[in-house]
Amino acid sequence: MNTKQSDNLLKNKMNRRQMLKLTGAGTAGVLIGATGFGSVANSFGYSIVDDNMTATEKVPFYGSHQSGIVTNVQKHIYFASLNVIVTSKEELKDLFEMWTPLAVRMMNGEEIAEPTTNSYVAAQDTGEAVGLSASNLTITFGVGPTLFEKSKLGLGHLKPTELEALPHFPKDQLDESYSSGDLCIQACADDPQVAFHAVRNLIRSASGKVILKWTQAGFNSIPVEKNKKQTPRNLFAFKDGTGNPNVNDTKEMNDVVWVQSNESVPWMTGGTYLVARRIQMHLETWDRTALGEQEATFGRHRDSGAPIGKTGEFEDMELARKDSSGNPIIPTTSHVHLAKLVDDRILRRSFSYSSGMDPKTGVFDAGLLFISFQKHPKQFINIQNSLGRIDKLNEYITHRGSATFACFPGIQKGSFVGESLFKA
Amino acid sequence: MNTKQSDNLLKNKMNRRQMLKLTGAGTAGVLIGATGFGSVANSFGYSIVDDNMTATEKVPFYGSHQSGIVTNVQKHIYFASLNVIVTSKEELKDLFEMWTPLAVRMMNGEEIAEPTTNSYVAAQDTGEAVGLSASNLTITFGVGPTLFEKSKLGLGHLKPTELEALPHFPKDQLDESYSSGDLCIQACADDPQVAFHAVRNLIRSASGKVILKWTQAGFNSIPVEKNKKQTPRNLFAFKDGTGNPNVNDTKEMNDVVWVQSNESVPWMTGGTYLVARRIQMHLETWDRTALGEQEATFGRHRDSGAPIGKTGEFEDMELARKDSSGNPIIPTTSHVHLAKLVDDRILRRSFSYSSGMDPKTGVFDAGLLFISFQKHPKQFINIQNSLGRIDKLNEYITHRGSATFACFPGIQKGSFVGESLFKA
Ligand code: HEM
Ligand code: HEM
Repeated sequence: MNTKQSDNLLKNKMNRRQMLKLTGAGTAGVLIGATGFGSVANSFGYSIVDDNMTATEKVPFYGSHQSGIVTNVQKHIYFASLNVIVTSKEELKDLFEMWTPLAVRMMNGEEIAEPTTNSYVAAQDTGEAVGLSASNLTITFGVGPTLFEKSKLGLGHLKPTELEALPHFPKDQLDESYSSGDLCIQACADDPQVAFHAVRNLIRSASGKVILKWTQAGFNSIPVEKNKKQTPRNLFAFKDGTGNPNVNDTKEMNDVVWVQSNESVPWMTGGTYLVARRIQMHLETWDRTALGEQEATFGRHRDSGAPIGKTGEFEDMELARKDSSGNPIIPTTSHVHLAKLVDDRILRRSFSYSSGMDPKTGVFDAGLLFISFQKHPKQFINIQNSLGRIDKLNEYITHRGSATFACFPGIQKGSFVGESLFKA
Repeated sequence: MNTKQSDNLLKNKMNRRQMLKLTGAGTAGVLIGATGFGSVANSFGYSIVDDNMTATEKVPFYGSHQSGIVTNVQKHIYFASLNVIVTSKEELKDLFEMWTPLAVRMMNGEEIAEPTTNSYVAAQDTGEAVGLSASNLTITFGVGPTLFEKSKLGLGHLKPTELEALPHFPKDQLDESYSSGDLCIQACADDPQVAFHAVRNLIRSASGKVILKWTQAGFNSIPVEKNKKQTPRNLFAFKDGTGNPNVNDTKEMNDVVWVQSNESVPWMTGGTYLVARRIQMHLETWDRTALGEQEATFGRHRDSGAPIGKTGEFEDMELARKDSSGNPIIPTTSHVHLAKLVDDRILRRSFSYSSGMDPKTGVFDAGLLFISFQKHPKQFINIQNSLGRIDKLNEYITHRGSATFACFPGIQKGSFVGESLFKA
């Protein structure tokens, strides 16, 4: 491990510890939180009302960045990739202008319009989220490379050179029906119906302007211990997210996630690039694998999430450590070792999926909707290249879908989603 | 409406009111419940810790009936239909005997076996539920008609005559890949990973003995108002479950759900028949439909769930009421009117699904995993026949999958799932 990396690790650890903040429990509207537990902070993890979520279960829409990126991860996602069928830049701009107040209302826990009393018209809001709280809903919008290639839209000259379909990686087995798209809407919430409702209403209001390219629902089951949220486990039972940069550290987020004014194209300042990979996880093969081999695959212990040979989840992962016979303690072909070999970092914000059966093979169709945010897609590309053919994990997973989107900067009151692009 | 029906309705209403019980909030282990709200009972609905769920988020496994039937509905389901590949009754019995303690442990929030410290073997439990609470997990087992037709198993003479694949109904468009099965495992929990984990571990432990036939995940988003759970809305935004019989009324459950000793075959006494229908809901068509037409489709108001012309969700649905011009207020072709035309009643326990896109049509693949329990499948059949071709709802839905299972009676300590069948 190089110095930059160990610095980062140390910084993470400190920040994570420092950021712990006890929130006042018992406020009306907090449906979880006031549980009769003492408010003793667990050394690691988040308080149950996260630092960047509020007691009213509402995440603010307006801000310098879009929500759903550094927002602490919610329990559910409904991700939709769309193609546009509008034929002018003006119409596309109108679409985002129309979407903006709807997103604001839904993130506020409201219907997209006041309920109608006229029974001769269709209700504007599809209504299935009535009575549910805002559930920390976030809605994140992005544009894909193919949007800029539609010449009628006249956006070609504004395409960031880094916004490209990802290169083919060794072992990719991509299916176009889970790949690419002109636009994306990422809706995350602590309730699956609230997340789905958001996408459904945005799509419906854009009828005749967009069509679905692919969608995927997913979940994160977040253990709560002594009133603190813990790192969720993926379907391979390993804690997933431990090594992430600290979303509460502005400097780190500026380094890793947010496009700065001298990078990319100007309209992306304050924005970020989203990479989505639909990765099938071969549960049956994994479940037959010895515990030690599973741990060697990741370089971490399954139960604690600690680096191999250590006990605490957030202890330093010292790649250089050797055992008494001089062999590296963290296997050099382990997922985390390889992910750390390059200087690049990314913010992972993935969700598990398990929606049914793979009719071809008769096994569970389950895996990870891997999502990462980075100020430049090459951060993801460099890591994925490092994982390459040698990552032990490759034996147990298959990448089936791939898409990349440029997520707009944050929206200010009076402005609309994507304004920086349309006014560029 | 006939007298029996209005009696039933009245009884429901009374029981629902009577059954309200305030549970002591603030107990350690109740992660939701003690919210700072006053403990004033809402006139309708369930207290947030339901009468038949416990403050520890554990539903008991043992009892006179299986769990997951009259248990108040959880937020998530993972339903699996399996075919068996064992070739003797003995092996099948061994399978259920082996499954029993695993189900007990998982419903207790434990791993299926103590975690191994031997890193040379595969862990017995797949581990992804570690750290999550029992989440009110219920696991319900049933056997389908095809099981009894496998002559090697020698169970033919024990087949209840009423356990048959359902007849073809008008408008059915069934897909064999979402239909039938020798066995079913219904896992319901307030957490999707806990439900999936249960099915995954049961299947894995039965490797070489069963294969997946079809699976479906689903959810219910349960609004909470003033500390009381409300009736969830389906993806058509209507409250779904209002007209259900009262699960807390033993007499009613004996009338509707539980096979009595003089009915069916003896080994089914205390058991029930499960009907599962995977019903696609055409959201796009529905969303274009005027509110009044939507309400006429169900015979209820969308917002309140009340019968048309009334304001309270649980007010009497008086089918005979006419408006000033002599027309029935509840349209005679409405779903609820038709469902009430027959004397039969069923206990519905359905979940919404919305897992992705229908690749053929480009629309959301969403709908209802309709599940009902009844002491005889004819109760379902009679209602479905009444809905027949004329139910207004038919325009907006398509039945795509169908299965029926005989769910064993409850399990006593020292006994195992299905014992009554294997000892018959
Ligand atoms: C199904 C596929 C995958 C699974 C199950 C998986 C699982 C994990 C696990 C368990 C960890 C250790 C805990 C943690 O830090 O979160 C980890 C770390 C990591 N993974 Fe993955 N991963 C997958 C795919 C990927 C992909 C496609 C990338 C990017 C190309 C990636 C990049 C990383 C990074 C950067 C780390 C953190 C390394 C550090 O500690 O700095 N992973 N992953
Ligand atoms: C996607 C398909 C379906 C949807 C969206 C749906 C929705 C509804 C709704 C909104 C109600 C009124 C509220 C309530 O009492 O729960 C209702 C009632 C009912 N439905 Fe359905 N339903 C569907 C399929 C079925 C099927 C297949 C059956 C059985 C054959 C059925 C049987 C009933 C019964 C018995 C009632 C209660 C009637 C009463 O008040 O006594 N439903 N349904």
